[in-house]
Amino acid sequence: MKEKEFVKEITNIEEDFAKWYTDIVLKAELADYTAVKGFITIRPYGYAIWENIQKYADKKFKEHGVRNLSMPVLIPESLLQKEKDHVEGFAPEVAWVTTGGGEELEERLCVRPTSETIFSTMYSKWLSSWRELPFLYNQWCNVLRWEKETRPFLRSREFLWQEGHTIHETAEEAKKFTLEMLEVYADIIENLLAIPVLKGKKTFTEQFAGADSTYTVETLMHDGRALQGGTSHYFGQNFTKPFDIKFQNREGKEEYAYQTSWGISTRLIGAVIMAHGDNRGLKLPPKVAPIQAVIVPVAMHKEGVKEKAEEVYKELLERYRVEIDLREQYSPGYKFNDWEMRGVPVRIELGPRDIENNKCVVVRRDNSEKIDISLDELNEKLGEILENIQKSMYEACAKRVKEKTTIAHNLEEFEENLKNNQGYVKTMWCGDAECEEKIHDLTGAKSRCIPFEQENLGDKCVCCGKPAKTMVVWGRQY
Amino acid sequence: MKEKEFVKEITNIEEDFAKWYTDIVLKAELADYTAVKGFITIRPYGYAIWENIQKYADKKFKEHGVRNLSMPVLIPESLLQKEKDHVEGFAPEVAWVTTGGGEELEERLCVRPTSETIFSTMYSKWLSSWRELPFLYNQWCNVLRWEKETRPFLRSREFLWQEGHTIHETAEEAKKFTLEMLEVYADIIENLLAIPVLKGKKTFTEQFAGADSTYTVETLMHDGRALQGGTSHYFGQNFTKPFDIKFQNREGKEEYAYQTSWGISTRLIGAVIMAHGDNRGLKLPPKVAPIQAVIVPVAMHKEGVKEKAEEVYKELLERYRVEIDLREQYSPGYKFNDWEMRGVPVRIELGPRDIENNKCVVVRRDNSEKIDISLDELNEKLGEILENIQKSMYEACAKRVKEKTTIAHNLEEFEENLKNNQGYVKTMWCGDAECEEKIHDLTGAKSRCIPFEQENLGDKCVCCGKPAKTMVVWGRQY
Repeated sequence: MKEKEFVKEITNIEEDFAKWYTDIVLKAELADYTAVKGFITIRPYGYAIWENIQKYADKKFKEHGVRNLSMPVLIPESLLQKEKDHVEGFAPEVAWVTTGGGEELEERLCVRPTSETIFSTMYSKWLSSWRELPFLYNQWCNVLRWEKETRPFLRSREFLWQEGHTIHETAEEAKKFTLEMLEVYADIIENLLAIPVLKGKKTFTEQFAGADSTYTVETLMHDGRALQGGTSHYFGQNFTKPFDIKFQNREGKEEYAYQTSWGISTRLIGAVIMAHGDNRGLKLPPKVAPIQAVIVPVAMHKEGVKEKAEEVYKELLERYRVEIDLREQYSPGYKFNDWEMRGVPVRIELGPRDIENNKCVVVRRDNSEKIDISLDELNEKLGEILENIQKSMYEACAKRVKEKTTIAHNLEEFEENLKNNQGYVKTMWCGDAECEEKIHDLTGAKSRCIPFEQENLGDKCVCCGKPAKTMVVWGRQY
Repeated sequence: MKEKEFVKEITNIEEDFAKWYTDIVLKAELADYTAVKGFITIRPYGYAIWENIQKYADKKFKEHGVRNLSMPVLIPESLLQKEKDHVEGFAPEVAWVTTGGGEELEERLCVRPTSETIFSTMYSKWLSSWRELPFLYNQWCNVLRWEKETRPFLRSREFLWQEGHTIHETAEEAKKFTLEMLEVYADIIENLLAIPVLKGKKTFTEQFAGADSTYTVETLMHDGRALQGGTSHYFGQNFTKPFDIKFQNREGKEEYAYQTSWGISTRLIGAVIMAHGDNRGLKLPPKVAPIQAVIVPVAMHKEGVKEKAEEVYKELLERYRVEIDLREQYSPGYKFNDWEMRGVPVRIELGPRDIENNKCVVVRRDNSEKIDISLDELNEKLGEILENIQKSMYEACAKRVKEKTTIAHNLEEFEENLKNNQGYVKTMWCGDAECEEKIHDLTGAKSRCIPFEQENLGDKCVCCGKPAKTMVVWGRQY
């Protein structure tokens, strides 16, 4: 009828993980390519995952006193240039608007890659006294970064995110808030997405452009590559000075405020796919799954089956995100595969014999376990099963992180570890950026972070052998 | 300390309504101007109104089976040009991205002014059989329209909105859905924002670029000017043909789908300000107010006052959106004015003598009524009072619409009516666009809509005197 780009089947996850990933994204209808190179559309099933992340995160932010607002999507070139490191970091990857309303603009405007500069300008206008502090504001929006190589969710020229920007009276308070937001991110990723995180500080090389320090929650994917889950930055007065964000302090003197920013993005959808998926497709943690359970009637043409299925559906709907599959053109077998591929945590099979025995068969997506459950108990038991799946999925990921974390005392061990068992490599480090670069050139791994939980693995840097300052975790990354 | 742009006082609403409006927007901290001409920032208090609108609307959309997704913010020029009327309508007011990642683009990309073209491209890719229909998708996003004259919320180069885009198997179903969404808009504006609407069909001249028919919910502001609250468009196959959105129908034949789109925007915040405000400032309907009640302790330094106020606050917080004003640098009188200006529906005054008598004083923002309420009954009674305010505010608006609606049988009456009592003018009309133009040139009024509820006011067109086809409502507009 017309050219279609359906994926016929899913690539084996162990053979070609990158291809497996793209297959899942397209076939489970999470996202699709568009007419604009490097830009995707997030389809309703993928977007519903994002909505669940937003809902959970937004509630947490508000519990911390954060309020949402909306800043302009376009930033004048002169504003972007006010903070030296910041413009160096972002200018190469922005998109420029040069014409508006049929006329060439006097000054070109970039589509925001991040909004430190525009928040800072408004904060300078709004702030006058210490009594007004802190400003704890956030926006949920789209940003553009003109990446050369793009992949749906992981690296896209446009992505959706939230960017929180705060200013505080003291450095201590700002630092504390930076870490509080990092804890919120850890909570989201571990408790909602069932992915364990590694918390720590980025090395100087890996810091955000313009930050004083950057903190991160790192995650490990199925193939042993790391993915940065979210970052929280402490800026000190790096922006408040050039942007003139000052206030009258308690002593009646002028002082520059202390600033933070922090963000998570639709990248997290990519993390969910790559942390949990398997050869049958997507595997969604119940708490974030748009559909937590799907009812598939078996022998739907038999008397009373459809009616009973609909009755069960309506009851469960009051408590769970549940779907019923009444499509007539597909067999139950097809439907089982289809919903497994889409990662729905629980399938409820209901056939004539089940109905006779006032029961149904509940099938778990995570471990394929089949459980007979009385229809009278289903509403109650389903909640327990979903909680159990959430817990098991987290544990499975935590087990992988443990298996894929190794220690290296020298570069040979480092290379060997990565080759045999790609994942996190823990080493001691001298603190020198040159060693980071050398390790990257040799192994392809970058420093993930200087973990908050330090261990003493020796006293020498894994690279140069000079006295070590800290323990660092390394890994190849997305 | 630094240049501030505080508004010192509010302009009289009857003397200069436009200036009064800007004063409220800035002083109540709903929005602010930014470094980019024509672009505003929506501040947290204004954004919280938008969040309440979003929450209410999104729930309604989902009850109609609509699902959210995200489409790219940039649209290639060639796509925009596919539908002739559409490009003519929008091309003059778009912003063009010409450079990305340091390189000039092969084809320039516009920042979306609306997304019919990009939705249509994806729908063409996704649709194959009648079994998949309807597609009922929506996105909450930002759009850009390079307006010459801008005003916060009402006409801004960037605004936030939702745009729903659906395709259907039959024309009837699509038309029905177009009107269902119009009813959702009427519900939002009347029940959430307490503003009565006039429902009808736009004349051909006032239709959306590329639509077959446009339906509208019109509202009337304090000064008698009309504001379009939301529109819902039926496209027929105007886009599905050039964009090749076809499917195999029930007879196994190829057919083009039938399409709709519909949107409401942050303009509605402007409507709330201008429909309800008065000389003391903003007046927010309780259902959409970010703060429904504010507790202002009186003689806060006296023993037990602050503690009791906090106790009441905590109790109310479980059921209402409530705030407590414990600022020490301001007097109760200042606080009363401040919260009135910010439109908070209810103020709760609590002083030492009130506490002695186990009561408080509740002051209504809408009619200044003061009510003594026992602290034991406050939690219950507050709900009733808020409901009552919501109802009264709607009725006050409805009364104004009634007073400001006149009938005209000829152009002299038309001009006279508008001069004496600006508002809606009802007339009969021949259906000719020339008469619309003549009326606009003469009176400044445009056709608001052909109301669903028709009345017979005679048999001649108000303008040319030829046989009339329909009754039309006219008005000067925002």
